[in-house]
Amino acid sequence: MPSTDPAADVGLLSPVRAGSAAEEATGDAAFVRGMLDAEAALARAQSALGLAPAFAAAAVTATAAEPGRFDPRDLALRARAGGNPVIPLVADLTAAVGERDANAASYVHRGATSQDILDTAAMLVASRALRHVLDDLAAAAEALGRLAAEHRDTPMAGRTLTQHAVPTTFGLKAAGWRSLVLDAHDRLTAVHGALPAQLGGAAGTLAAFGAFAEADGAAPGAAAAPRLLAAYAAETGLAEPALPWHTLRTPVADLAGALAFTAGALGKVAADVLVLSRTEIGEVSEGAGGGSSAMPHKANPVRATLIAAAARQVPALAAVLYGSLAAEDERPAGAWHAEWQPLREALRLVGGAALDTAELAAGLRVRPQRMRENLDATRGLVVTERLAAALAALMDRGEAKSALARASRRVAEEGITLDDALARDPVLGGLLPEGRLRELTDPTRCTGSAGALADRALRRPGPAGTSS
Amino acid sequence: MPSTDPAADVGLLSPVRAGSAAEEATGDAAFVRGMLDAEAALARAQSALGLAPAFAAAAVTATAAEPGRFDPRDLALRARAGGNPVIPLVADLTAAVGERDANAASYVHRGATSQDILDTAAMLVASRALRHVLDDLAAAAEALGRLAAEHRDTPMAGRTLTQHAVPTTFGLKAAGWRSLVLDAHDRLTAVHGALPAQLGGAAGTLAAFGAFAEADGAAPGAAAAPRLLAAYAAETGLAEPALPWHTLRTPVADLAGALAFTAGALGKVAADVLVLSRTEIGEVSEGAGGGSSAMPHKANPVRATLIAAAARQVPALAAVLYGSLAAEDERPAGAWHAEWQPLREALRLVGGAALDTAELAAGLRVRPQRMRENLDATRGLVVTERLAAALAALMDRGEAKSALARASRRVAEEGITLDDALARDPVLGGLLPEGRLRELTDPTRCTGSAGALADRALRRPGPAGTSS
Amino acid sequence: MPSTDPAADVGLLSPVRAGSAAEEATGDAAFVRGMLDAEAALARAQSALGLAPAFAAAAVTATAAEPGRFDPRDLALRARAGGNPVIPLVADLTAAVGERDANAASYVHRGATSQDILDTAAMLVASRALRHVLDDLAAAAEALGRLAAEHRDTPMAGRTLTQHAVPTTFGLKAAGWRSLVLDAHDRLTAVHGALPAQLGGAAGTLAAFGAFAEADGAAPGAAAAPRLLAAYAAETGLAEPALPWHTLRTPVADLAGALAFTAGALGKVAADVLVLSRTEIGEVSEGAGGGSSAMPHKANPVRATLIAAAARQVPALAAVLYGSLAAEDERPAGAWHAEWQPLREALRLVGGAALDTAELAAGLRVRPQRMRENLDATRGLVVTERLAAALAALMDRGEAKSALARASRRVAEEGITLDDALARDPVLGGLLPEGRLRELTDPTRCTGSAGALADRALRRPGPAGTSS
Amino acid sequence: MPSTDPAADVGLLSPVRAGSAAEEATGDAAFVRGMLDAEAALARAQSALGLAPAFAAAAVTATAAEPGRFDPRDLALRARAGGNPVIPLVADLTAAVGERDANAASYVHRGATSQDILDTAAMLVASRALRHVLDDLAAAAEALGRLAAEHRDTPMAGRTLTQHAVPTTFGLKAAGWRSLVLDAHDRLTAVHGALPAQLGGAAGTLAAFGAFAEADGAAPGAAAAPRLLAAYAAETGLAEPALPWHTLRTPVADLAGALAFTAGALGKVAADVLVLSRTEIGEVSEGAGGGSSAMPHKANPVRATLIAAAARQVPALAAVLYGSLAAEDERPAGAWHAEWQPLREALRLVGGAALDTAELAAGLRVRPQRMRENLDATRGLVVTERLAAALAALMDRGEAKSALARASRRVAEEGITLDDALARDPVLGGLLPEGRLRELTDPTRCTGSAGALADRALRRPGPAGTSS
Repeated sequence: MPSTDPAADVGLLSPVRAGSAAEEATGDAAFVRGMLDAEAALARAQSALGLAPAFAAAAVTATAAEPGRFDPRDLALRARAGGNPVIPLVADLTAAVGERDANAASYVHRGATSQDILDTAAMLVASRALRHVLDDLAAAAEALGRLAAEHRDTPMAGRTLTQHAVPTTFGLKAAGWRSLVLDAHDRLTAVHGALPAQLGGAAGTLAAFGAFAEADGAAPGAAAAPRLLAAYAAETGLAEPALPWHTLRTPVADLAGALAFTAGALGKVAADVLVLSRTEIGEVSEGAGGGSSAMPHKANPVRATLIAAAARQVPALAAVLYGSLAAEDERPAGAWHAEWQPLREALRLVGGAALDTAELAAGLRVRPQRMRENLDATRGLVVTERLAAALAALMDRGEAKSALARASRRVAEEGITLDDALARDPVLGGLLPEGRLRELTDPTRCTGSAGALADRALRRPGPAGTSS
Repeated sequence: MPSTDPAADVGLLSPVRAGSAAEEATGDAAFVRGMLDAEAALARAQSALGLAPAFAAAAVTATAAEPGRFDPRDLALRARAGGNPVIPLVADLTAAVGERDANAASYVHRGATSQDILDTAAMLVASRALRHVLDDLAAAAEALGRLAAEHRDTPMAGRTLTQHAVPTTFGLKAAGWRSLVLDAHDRLTAVHGALPAQLGGAAGTLAAFGAFAEADGAAPGAAAAPRLLAAYAAETGLAEPALPWHTLRTPVADLAGALAFTAGALGKVAADVLVLSRTEIGEVSEGAGGGSSAMPHKANPVRATLIAAAARQVPALAAVLYGSLAAEDERPAGAWHAEWQPLREALRLVGGAALDTAELAAGLRVRPQRMRENLDATRGLVVTERLAAALAALMDRGEAKSALARASRRVAEEGITLDDALARDPVLGGLLPEGRLRELTDPTRCTGSAGALADRALRRPGPAGTSS
Repeated sequence: MPSTDPAADVGLLSPVRAGSAAEEATGDAAFVRGMLDAEAALARAQSALGLAPAFAAAAVTATAAEPGRFDPRDLALRARAGGNPVIPLVADLTAAVGERDANAASYVHRGATSQDILDTAAMLVASRALRHVLDDLAAAAEALGRLAAEHRDTPMAGRTLTQHAVPTTFGLKAAGWRSLVLDAHDRLTAVHGALPAQLGGAAGTLAAFGAFAEADGAAPGAAAAPRLLAAYAAETGLAEPALPWHTLRTPVADLAGALAFTAGALGKVAADVLVLSRTEIGEVSEGAGGGSSAMPHKANPVRATLIAAAARQVPALAAVLYGSLAAEDERPAGAWHAEWQPLREALRLVGGAALDTAELAAGLRVRPQRMRENLDATRGLVVTERLAAALAALMDRGEAKSALARASRRVAEEGITLDDALARDPVLGGLLPEGRLRELTDPTRCTGSAGALADRALRRPGPAGTSS
Repeated sequence: MPSTDPAADVGLLSPVRAGSAAEEATGDAAFVRGMLDAEAALARAQSALGLAPAFAAAAVTATAAEPGRFDPRDLALRARAGGNPVIPLVADLTAAVGERDANAASYVHRGATSQDILDTAAMLVASRALRHVLDDLAAAAEALGRLAAEHRDTPMAGRTLTQHAVPTTFGLKAAGWRSLVLDAHDRLTAVHGALPAQLGGAAGTLAAFGAFAEADGAAPGAAAAPRLLAAYAAETGLAEPALPWHTLRTPVADLAGALAFTAGALGKVAADVLVLSRTEIGEVSEGAGGGSSAMPHKANPVRATLIAAAARQVPALAAVLYGSLAAEDERPAGAWHAEWQPLREALRLVGGAALDTAELAAGLRVRPQRMRENLDATRGLVVTERLAAALAALMDRGEAKSALARASRRVAEEGITLDDALARDPVLGGLLPEGRLRELTDPTRCTGSAGALADRALRRPGPAGTSS
């Protein structure tokens, strides 16, 4: 029988990410692991610079490699006293290291501040989660590229303000989706590569590192401290920061922007799939629609629904993170603490949405026949733009316009087709040879440069460096 | 050793609510319990109206009373397929009821739609969580009322745009805090009392309830269905809705507004405590400040920090919920799903912030002596508004103004007190009898109507109906 | 030729409100008028309490009645120095009053602080704008009530997650829209009636009012000051505040919530109209659709589009306003200033959206025939819920379910109707008498309690006190 | 006498931007100019490709060069009908071109859709406004660099969670501010250089351009259309888009992110200035503080206040813009319209905040003496971190810690200095030579690597390519 903590959120209210790799990469356990990794990296970096003995670094590293010893819920409860989970974790880690090697305990967290550890952990978590996101975006882009190529010349209604406007192609639409997914991939890749480690000590001056070095008789003293930035970053695998960034929150804000961008980009794909899946439209359907036992005909666009739900949430979370840029002093009273949960939630929602988009793109069923039928929904009016251009070359522009408007009105009012209305029109009837007329009013020949634009978009290389 | 699910959020990143009653009341387990309560209430309501046999209602109720049988994580994972957790829960509940009584299984969830159950569960969770929030707000209001009464006449600097303006009292400040807490209590109480059950069936017409009744030969048929609204609501303990509200999201939006209000109101208290706790100001401190092992002098205002962090997050979550009002159709593809996590998170953040405010208010240490000292920080200039009024009655207003400006400039530039500057001023020196002058420049006598206003505010009754 | 200030926003980017009464009620000129009204009310209130001579109140009132003397752009430019527009306005007003009566000038703004005037002006502007909003909401509710009554029994597809679910009626949909509009009207009415005047003086203690009274030899002194709250509120026509609310921002937060609610409620109407207007659905159209010269067949749902655009913006503006609740000190450095533009913008967007909704509701064209046709889009599957209930009473539930699923699959795969599929089914064929079968599969007879629910909703009285 | 349109916003409620160059660059008149520039560029591009006669391009260009002919308010009012201002503008422009050359009128807006023109106008407006923003950020960075260099070794208290932690330097703080301003400059520069023109025609296929070409007998027909993208972009001075981006809103989302980043970055500077300006702290003051006639001692940090107010608003506006990424179809019904006003407002707020930051940085008065005095506010405890490190090297770490805690307690409770407490301590008294002790407890010698870090930060080149 399961024994979930009563207070736990295990994904029940967030199906978009339940079970995804990004979810596990961002759980509380992953943050504990990140904090332990940060502490171990710090001990090793100090050892590498001669600021701590090798045995201490080894002891901290070995102990930190057993994250199962540290209970996230217990740490969460004890975090209330001081306001962050690093304080109880350091206590537990110090005790555990002491059990392993009594002389090593005093080197745990030496010189550091809680924010050094939690910020580094957040960047490690983000880095690990983003790898999954980037993979899923790459898979989505590849599948969308295939759809675009396959349907390069599949005509469908172009829709503006909910109304049929002029024809377009499904290939151009899918190529557009892919371009957004690639834009998201680019932005996340840039951010991913720049995620920095955090190290500054109590007020961002690295003073304690120097003080301990000095007290230990290390010749360099304060001079050694800035070198710790590079050594520590190298040990964590994150980028070296130019400055401690306790209240210079560029990394978090950049993450916020790239995540909001990605959520929105995927939300565009979902928004289109939701429209095209409508019972009356039926131009696409998800490979694995959500069923309903009471209503066997329902094939709900579940993936698109969950992506759309994520896209509604992430911009607001990003707004909180951007708001936290305005952080006073050397550590703010609230702005920092307000970042933790929104950043994690944004990573998870985007992680789930990326996975869902990859699945949606891979399984999407496209119905060219239905697209063709829907193109006739306006009984030919969808081609009037092109017809107007052709007529404008043959007669007075104003006269052409009013004649076309007259014919269009009849289509709307009498329920006849545009072909019939044109034939019956006193001015337009017989004006054009029938073959030319048929060609002009064929919606499948009114897709303009859709094919060329799709080609152009598909020449952009995918994430793997290969054009898909 | 703990075995937290790797994906779980057990509060590590949200110390504001870790361990609070509101947190437990809003965990995934609490949502499972809420969904089970909804299913059981539905079976009983149908039985009460003769639409289902009593034994079925009993079997569902008994099975639903064992929430431990239903694993939130497993439900979360299976929720991905159909997009919501009710679908797998109904499958499990049907099976479990069937084990208890094979004939009862077909009455599980009969006629209902997933949204009926999840929305009802959300309202039950909100209702249970709000009880804790209201209690904590009442406790905070009472403690703040005591502070206001005790410090009715404790003078302190009134500060505007970060600068000393004119004196005020700590009593008026605390009375203002209390009034905001009472405003929050009022708004949440109104929302709490109106939280409705949800019932509508597949598209909000209650059709299936009537169809089953009709098929079972129940005379009333469709006529019985609307009566289910009241019966079901009564069984849940929630209010009866006027209409199914699948896409009429007033209850959720009202919750959003009241929660954002409360977070902001508590955020005001926190903002003031953070200012007054500053090392240079030191007029208040939290009873149990967060310490730092490396810096023993630090007594961080942790409660205020965590409240401030919550106040930064809830408005953005409320914006998502307000955005979900614009939900298309009879069930929207995304807007509904986007509500779940933000609503829960808002409840938790407000729950934690209310508890923290109650603790903060109960333990706040007020330092009248420091307030008195700080009043002298402008060397008397804090009283110039009153002095200007007095001088304006004695001489030409313009002349008074320029004389006072001249004296003030000397205070600022020469570092002398206003008393000295006035004495040395060619126009003002000796103008007023010394006693009158001393009285006019005594900042503790410049608090205007602060006491009367505090009295006025304290006459407003507290939540328990008694003025505190 | 127009000579718009180059920096002016005259509505070019906000067609939702251009030309509306709410727009004019919230322009910069309206704020100037509101500030002048506040200054005049203050002078009169002081005069009424014997704290200022009658001639001064008369002079201020007469001068304030000429808002054309005060140039909003000039005030805006001069507001930069001190950070708010009251400072330059007081200078100009003092000069103008002085021209009229030299002895009156010193009574302008006496004892007040900038925030007293600007907050009062904002409440006056809100009050005036809300009158228009409430009128438009009432008109919208009335028109929607008519639609609901007229179409009480007009069947249409109920749609969930973009798919046809089971039938509903347009009457129930319109009744639901009306109920949301009434909810918005209720919330705005409550806020409207409580909008308070603002008065507190430099730090919210009313000290200067007492100081001037005292200096003038007024016996009461400080005692008179609190009485000013009622007198001033009465002169402005706004509610009397319990306390000065310089940093107790309940009135602004309540406005924020009610405006976000209204925008969202109207956004729901728009969202549905946008879906139902789609070319392929065509169940409703706006009375005056936006045309396109190049595409004469387009009848864009412009009103719904503009309402939807407003609904996307207001929640974010409300989040800023809720965020400003956390305002430090007696006047905050930023939180107050951040309210002005978002509050005005929210009022304008809601004002425009309410007007657009009234127009949309009054002119909406409903197409019952198209609704009926669309009900057949699933070739009968839209009734399976009801059929399943009927079959479950006749045979083993599991068997019934699998037989129905089998028949449904044939409908989907073979393109036949449900009637045909049932007839051909080995189990279901001939099971039910033809008449009963025809009745069961008639979607127009599957609307459940939609009519009764609409009736129930329409019994709620409209804003004019009459049920519409 | 001024005759401001009653509905106009001329900056009265937004002192942060009133009178700034960015404000004028983003007014409605600037949008009209941008739309006219877009129409003229389109005519010239078509002419350049042989799709329109040169005389038509000349006539459109000449007419568009007279923006005074087009009244923003009149356009705003007429925009309501079709939902955007391009429709009436095209009507007016066509008429005006026709007056100039009757044969040219039919080439106005030929083949284009409203969104082509409005999006291009928005990018032109953004481009022009950003030039001012970038200049102001460069000026701010230069001034901050000077401050950082000048105060490289000026010690001050490092503050965390409102409490003194350990010493830092003002140089490091200013260097951090500069680094954020440079980060903002980098992000805006990247976005600025990529702002694309918009061209797609009715549904983004460029079809009408090809249709007109074809109808005119142009051999290439559809083949010419994609070449229009480059020609048109070149005429506007904007970047060439890879695809029409009617619903691929990367450019707007990228702007949103960079603007939210900048607002937040400047908000950090403001937040620090607001703290350091507090009456009790007094370590900096703005060069031109906002005064108060009633309170001559007040020197409000007005610039910082207005920047802080802007920083509170822009993230919410960015959230709206990120939300609009999820735009359905080939033109969405609402998401596009919801971008216009928030994008303009974000540009204006950031424009004003950048100007204010440049002014603030140039005029900031720094008070090293006050910083030094404040360092003593904890009577020496601010150095305990360093002392602990030193003692840990001399004695058992636990013993050192408890001795230091004991001494610190005496400092707090008895009001003595740390020096005295150490001298009187049974363990620590006399442990260290007096010189060494004095050196260890001198807060000005506890600034760690602050100087080295500031140097490191200042080596980053400023916008002009020169390290400042």
